[in-house]
Amino acid sequence: MPTRRQFLHGASAAILSVSVVSRVQAASLPEAPSQTKPQTQPPPLPANGPSYNPVVTLNGWSLPWRMKDGVKEFHLIAEAVVRELAPGMKANLWGYNGQSPGPTIECVEGDRVRIFVTNKLPEHTTVHWHGVRLPNGMDGVGGLTQSHIKPGETFAYEFVMKQSGTFMYHPHSDEMVQMAMGMHGFLVVHPRDSKRYRVDRDFVFLINAHDIDPGSMTPKVNTMLDFNLWTFNSRVFPGIDSLVVRKGDRVRIRMGNLSMTSHPIHLHGYHFTVTGTDGGWVPPSAQWPEVTIDVPVGAMRAFEFVADEPGDWALHCHKSHHTMNAMGHQVPTMIGVEQQDIAKKISGLVPDYMVMGEKGMADMGAMEMPLPANTLPMMTGQGPFGAIEMGGMFTVVKVREGLARNDYKDPGWYKHPDGTVAYRVDDKRA
Amino acid sequence: MPTRRQFLHGASAAILSVSVVSRVQAASLPEAPSQTKPQTQPPPLPANGPSYNPVVTLNGWSLPWRMKDGVKEFHLIAEAVVRELAPGMKANLWGYNGQSPGPTIECVEGDRVRIFVTNKLPEHTTVHWHGVRLPNGMDGVGGLTQSHIKPGETFAYEFVMKQSGTFMYHPHSDEMVQMAMGMHGFLVVHPRDSKRYRVDRDFVFLINAHDIDPGSMTPKVNTMLDFNLWTFNSRVFPGIDSLVVRKGDRVRIRMGNLSMTSHPIHLHGYHFTVTGTDGGWVPPSAQWPEVTIDVPVGAMRAFEFVADEPGDWALHCHKSHHTMNAMGHQVPTMIGVEQQDIAKKISGLVPDYMVMGEKGMADMGAMEMPLPANTLPMMTGQGPFGAIEMGGMFTVVKVREGLARNDYKDPGWYKHPDGTVAYRVDDKRA
Amino acid sequence: MPTRRQFLHGASAAILSVSVVSRVQAASLPEAPSQTKPQTQPPPLPANGPSYNPVVTLNGWSLPWRMKDGVKEFHLIAEAVVRELAPGMKANLWGYNGQSPGPTIECVEGDRVRIFVTNKLPEHTTVHWHGVRLPNGMDGVGGLTQSHIKPGETFAYEFVMKQSGTFMYHPHSDEMVQMAMGMHGFLVVHPRDSKRYRVDRDFVFLINAHDIDPGSMTPKVNTMLDFNLWTFNSRVFPGIDSLVVRKGDRVRIRMGNLSMTSHPIHLHGYHFTVTGTDGGWVPPSAQWPEVTIDVPVGAMRAFEFVADEPGDWALHCHKSHHTMNAMGHQVPTMIGVEQQDIAKKISGLVPDYMVMGEKGMADMGAMEMPLPANTLPMMTGQGPFGAIEMGGMFTVVKVREGLARNDYKDPGWYKHPDGTVAYRVDDKRA
Repeated sequence: MPTRRQFLHGASAAILSVSVVSRVQAASLPEAPSQTKPQTQPPPLPANGPSYNPVVTLNGWSLPWRMKDGVKEFHLIAEAVVRELAPGMKANLWGYNGQSPGPTIECVEGDRVRIFVTNKLPEHTTVHWHGVRLPNGMDGVGGLTQSHIKPGETFAYEFVMKQSGTFMYHPHSDEMVQMAMGMHGFLVVHPRDSKRYRVDRDFVFLINAHDIDPGSMTPKVNTMLDFNLWTFNSRVFPGIDSLVVRKGDRVRIRMGNLSMTSHPIHLHGYHFTVTGTDGGWVPPSAQWPEVTIDVPVGAMRAFEFVADEPGDWALHCHKSHHTMNAMGHQVPTMIGVEQQDIAKKISGLVPDYMVMGEKGMADMGAMEMPLPANTLPMMTGQGPFGAIEMGGMFTVVKVREGLARNDYKDPGWYKHPDGTVAYRVDDKRA
Repeated sequence: MPTRRQFLHGASAAILSVSVVSRVQAASLPEAPSQTKPQTQPPPLPANGPSYNPVVTLNGWSLPWRMKDGVKEFHLIAEAVVRELAPGMKANLWGYNGQSPGPTIECVEGDRVRIFVTNKLPEHTTVHWHGVRLPNGMDGVGGLTQSHIKPGETFAYEFVMKQSGTFMYHPHSDEMVQMAMGMHGFLVVHPRDSKRYRVDRDFVFLINAHDIDPGSMTPKVNTMLDFNLWTFNSRVFPGIDSLVVRKGDRVRIRMGNLSMTSHPIHLHGYHFTVTGTDGGWVPPSAQWPEVTIDVPVGAMRAFEFVADEPGDWALHCHKSHHTMNAMGHQVPTMIGVEQQDIAKKISGLVPDYMVMGEKGMADMGAMEMPLPANTLPMMTGQGPFGAIEMGGMFTVVKVREGLARNDYKDPGWYKHPDGTVAYRVDDKRA
Repeated sequence: MPTRRQFLHGASAAILSVSVVSRVQAASLPEAPSQTKPQTQPPPLPANGPSYNPVVTLNGWSLPWRMKDGVKEFHLIAEAVVRELAPGMKANLWGYNGQSPGPTIECVEGDRVRIFVTNKLPEHTTVHWHGVRLPNGMDGVGGLTQSHIKPGETFAYEFVMKQSGTFMYHPHSDEMVQMAMGMHGFLVVHPRDSKRYRVDRDFVFLINAHDIDPGSMTPKVNTMLDFNLWTFNSRVFPGIDSLVVRKGDRVRIRMGNLSMTSHPIHLHGYHFTVTGTDGGWVPPSAQWPEVTIDVPVGAMRAFEFVADEPGDWALHCHKSHHTMNAMGHQVPTMIGVEQQDIAKKISGLVPDYMVMGEKGMADMGAMEMPLPANTLPMMTGQGPFGAIEMGGMFTVVKVREGLARNDYKDPGWYKHPDGTVAYRVDDKRA
């Protein structure tokens, strides 16, 4: 990834009309940083423009920008990427700037932004700014509000951010396929007054799903219901970073769902309220206490709580199949069945068949099974007290006492091969 | 369709007890107008009884009534119908008065209504008035609150509308089959004081789904999950009319879901609030801002916004498969695969198989493919900027400046073969 | 079932540390009453500890406790059980204390509780107290907050109930399998001040689903979507008791969903508001009027209404397949098809195939079909006006005038083979 310095000084663009960018103009496009790591990256601090408290994108990153005559300029590259879903499994996806989901775009209420989109996909695309109030021509619906962006072309979207909130971006062009392939990202507009809606920790992630056959790398884009990899920001447990907060922090978690079904996200140990949607902030009079928030498809939910009880608190989708990795959903139950002979016969017919023990499936969390290449165990993960027996949409909110200011170390108990997990700590409280 | 005059003066009924209507009494039933067109019809204005602002039923119509000794009398005929889902595809459904969904019934808070239901189906039926507070015997649950209405019989439902709101009607008799066949309609009770809950444009439609094999005309009524035609009022894009409003209008859209899954309906370009359910009006203190409203099965949601930004704003279900027409959901992904030979082999096995290009599926929106008779393309529709590449639950809210009062012309950019789309404009604002 | 007396005086336990209980300590465990009947049982009244108004668990029961040095001690046995889903069909499930779902645990805000869990399953387990605010070590997530409880072991959970509300319990250990097998129950914490949130009738039940092949008894635990038995507290219509209330009663119904999809529960004849979730009580300013409440997975919804209109009011899931018993969802439609020959051929291939009549399926509600052993009809039930043609998630709220105080007789119109249905009537109102 290029340094911020390279990014901010590497190019000087002419003022561009909002339209497809010509070859001559392309020479002056802002740089498009690319990300190679699937781990959570510390967000860039606001070096120019109004100040704000950055969000932390779970297993993601925020896109740097340049300031050009008072306009924040971003550059997205729509392209094929390889995304690591968890150590041991990679997927061929489509995304932006090296990853899927794409980088989080952060700006401030009142900002004028110009977002260049360069299409390096084999087919045309557009970008729709889900939830943003903007002029019709900037809405990104191919055929309806603009021509599709052809392969090799760059389109410049430009508009003023009228309201703070949490939005998303994704194509509106061959939409089912491009979203199934992983093209989406978060767009956070911070309040102009940074004291409004202030929290100490602010996490964002997308909820999505893929259908990738064991031993395969490419999602089946026509799947409507029977997905087998349920992901937070296109990562599965135990590949999802934990959310580390200090005891006493006010915490906000913002989740957008771009899968094909609603996901009831359950947090252990706390009662919380939904404080925002992709339509704006929820007034206090309308807030409900919840422990599970059902995030509809094509919607965002932000919820908040004060982390006053230390410990390791599970955060997961409550549909129990969504906390499992790839498995066959038509497999018969073997509880109470003597199955030595049957198992041999079935394995002959179905190569990826996993036999469920006569006593339930708990053995699977601990056992080592021979798996096809590029395939994750169905249920896995080690905790301080043994096998966690989970997969998919599962992670842990770690509430810790005595975290130092800007302590970016993860005090976690399970190991990431590529280690560093960074979270910004609010200066005012440390 | 008969004229209003014929309807209002064509019959003079004796006062009927609430029960199955005898052959003698049948002679004095109110006329039962029938509708032959699937296009949006201008609603009848309130010629008698208290005044109200009619709703516009998207690709539907409102049922005329007659006034009989202070009671509003309606007549529904339960019968087999042929519904055009979009130009080029028709379905064998069951419905009411010539169409499926049935006509919208409009009345006013405090009205006493008498609704005759004549059963011309091959099996028995009932009508349940979903959401209406009424005496138990009028609730329409076959076996529980009344005897089923046998083929050939007419049953008279009679009750007073205690509360304004948006309700639905559908059978509670062989319910799964009859609802899968298309038997449902809207019931709107306007406030007694027409200034309450006042809006300038008021649209209603049902959200439903069918499973009809390509080349076939009859829904598979036993399908629970894997539907292939996702419809607004049993129409699919590009067969769904657009919702035309004037810039500055306060707009209400009311949607009832009678399918088998929730539908997150997303409006581009606006933030809105849910102001009503089938349980009544939502108090302002409880209203949330949204851009996507997840409509549960068996529920109605009304949402409102002020149309202050002109343009063509997409309104669609955000489950991406629900904006596609019939397709196979088990088809493998061909992105990056040389497939000339494979395609031939698959086509031999699966006659309706559609090959997805090596570069994605965007070509499908523009290309002409040979399709079985009575089958719609998977993704289609032309906009001012090219192929829209959509199907199913997709339409456009068109916000236009300078619409004249009572200007019923659709300024739309795509053509309906049978043209006229009519919307009532509120006299006060023009 | 042991008498209350036996339970309360049968054992005297030493003070136990919160941990796995040793063999010596096991001798002093509180008794673990077991339930053999699937009918609704009258809840025990609060004989010791603070007073409260018990809930009625639909087709379930509440677990007695003993008072030990100011701590309420409960004893759950995790074990294999046989549950009758309706007269004529039993299932091999896993549950607690003889039934699945397990017994409802009732206590009072401020209570210190100690819940012993003895594992008599063939594999390890834990219990997670869904929604309860407690110390991290009591959260019951195997591997993360405690070691799994091995077969034969007993674990003691102990914590103080900080808040009133409606919670659930279920394993967090081989979770998908154990929940699919039926391991879950309700946990109700009554307000310290019994006048707060006071209602006259208070019902609770879990919403769940099983996939059991016709003629079989054991659920297919790997099923993700295509369930065939949709149940209230693991009972299906007509095996679900009715909810009998007096005219004028304020009624609360609390439902927790531990299935794999949301369930839109619809009550006929009334408008109601949601007053509680598993996160606590909903403030009045945030309450919406509804007639259908969509209960997300892993969530609880309590709703309230005043039963001012007498009659038999259907209460059911509005997904129409969820009010049917086991059926094939891929069966073609036969409406309008001459099928005498076809039916013979299909029956030869698919032994459990049910032919749908040429005229719809209404005949099925009344007809007698030869069914495999341990299999329920697809649609069934007799009402005062004939066949109700329902199955699955369907029951009736019966609003009756003139019910005597403590009148435990069900004035119902359909027969349970094992009759007695008991409901507590609030003393103050009778």
